[in-house]
Amino acid sequence: MAVPARFNFVTLGAGDVSALRGFYERLGWQAAKASVDGEVAFFWLNGLVLSLYDRASLYREIGVEGDATPRARETNIAINVETPEEVATVLAEAEAAGGSILAPARTMHWGGVSGYFADPEGHAWEVAHNPFMPLDADGRLLPLDV
Amino acid sequence: MAVPARFNFVTLGAGDVSALRGFYERLGWQAAKASVDGEVAFFWLNGLVLSLYDRASLYREIGVEGDATPRARETNIAINVETPEEVATVLAEAEAAGGSILAPARTMHWGGVSGYFADPEGHAWEVAHNPFMPLDADGRLLPLDV
Repeated sequence: MAVPARFNFVTLGAGDVSALRGFYERLGWQAAKASVDGEVAFFWLNGLVLSLYDRASLYREIGVEGDATPRARETNIAINVETPEEVATVLAEAEAAGGSILAPARTMHWGGVSGYFADPEGHAWEVAHNPFMPLDADGRLLPLDV
Repeated sequence: MAVPARFNFVTLGAGDVSALRGFYERLGWQAAKASVDGEVAFFWLNGLVLSLYDRASLYREIGVEGDATPRARETNIAINVETPEEVATVLAEAEAAGGSILAPARTMHWGGVSGYFADPEGHAWEVAHNPFMPLDADGRLLPLDV
């Protein structure tokens, strides 16, 4: 299989998730119920999710904690896949194309499977299976509960 | 009006656009005909566009050239709007919500209108009207010619 040509998540690293969430709410955007105060905020945006996530946690999950040049990873983009098994398969495809694995496929505390690769200039991509956020037939995330 | 709750573009700053384009093509993704060798590459991904763009040009357009802490701007995300006039309106809405204007609405060499704001943690968002990339009724970019 090839790497699905799509976006499902864009995550912004945040120093203060609550304050940053307030800004996006003032734009008129509505945070989903799945958001957790002070930890993470989700906004469903027309088929994909904007996520605001604690920067230190994000770097820890990506595996770049302490990286001296994190600029290319500050905004994290993700491809969601339909099955847990596909995560490792897609990571392998990305590596075969010249990417590097930042974090292998592993089961996450939130109940899904996730891994990270970097493109040759260091931009991080997450590949994830999230059983709680189903995709429609076009590979877009269904609206979140708000 | 409020700020449209959507994504239309995600742009990755690239040191070598051609080399980075090669990586994404090896994933099985097809660059659009509007791509310009060595300058910019566009991939239509399920309703939005992944753009690879010369990093120095990107920083110049955002107005952060020489910025010592560009990490939050390395990946640039954009909201496309239906009319040229809306660009300034949406930027003003973002400023009123606590964002800061990085670059005002101006006519660009590529024939559209564009401006940038930053959220309170410095993540850059472009607001753009692109007469050559129409949106569908759901606010998603129509497929590009490949």
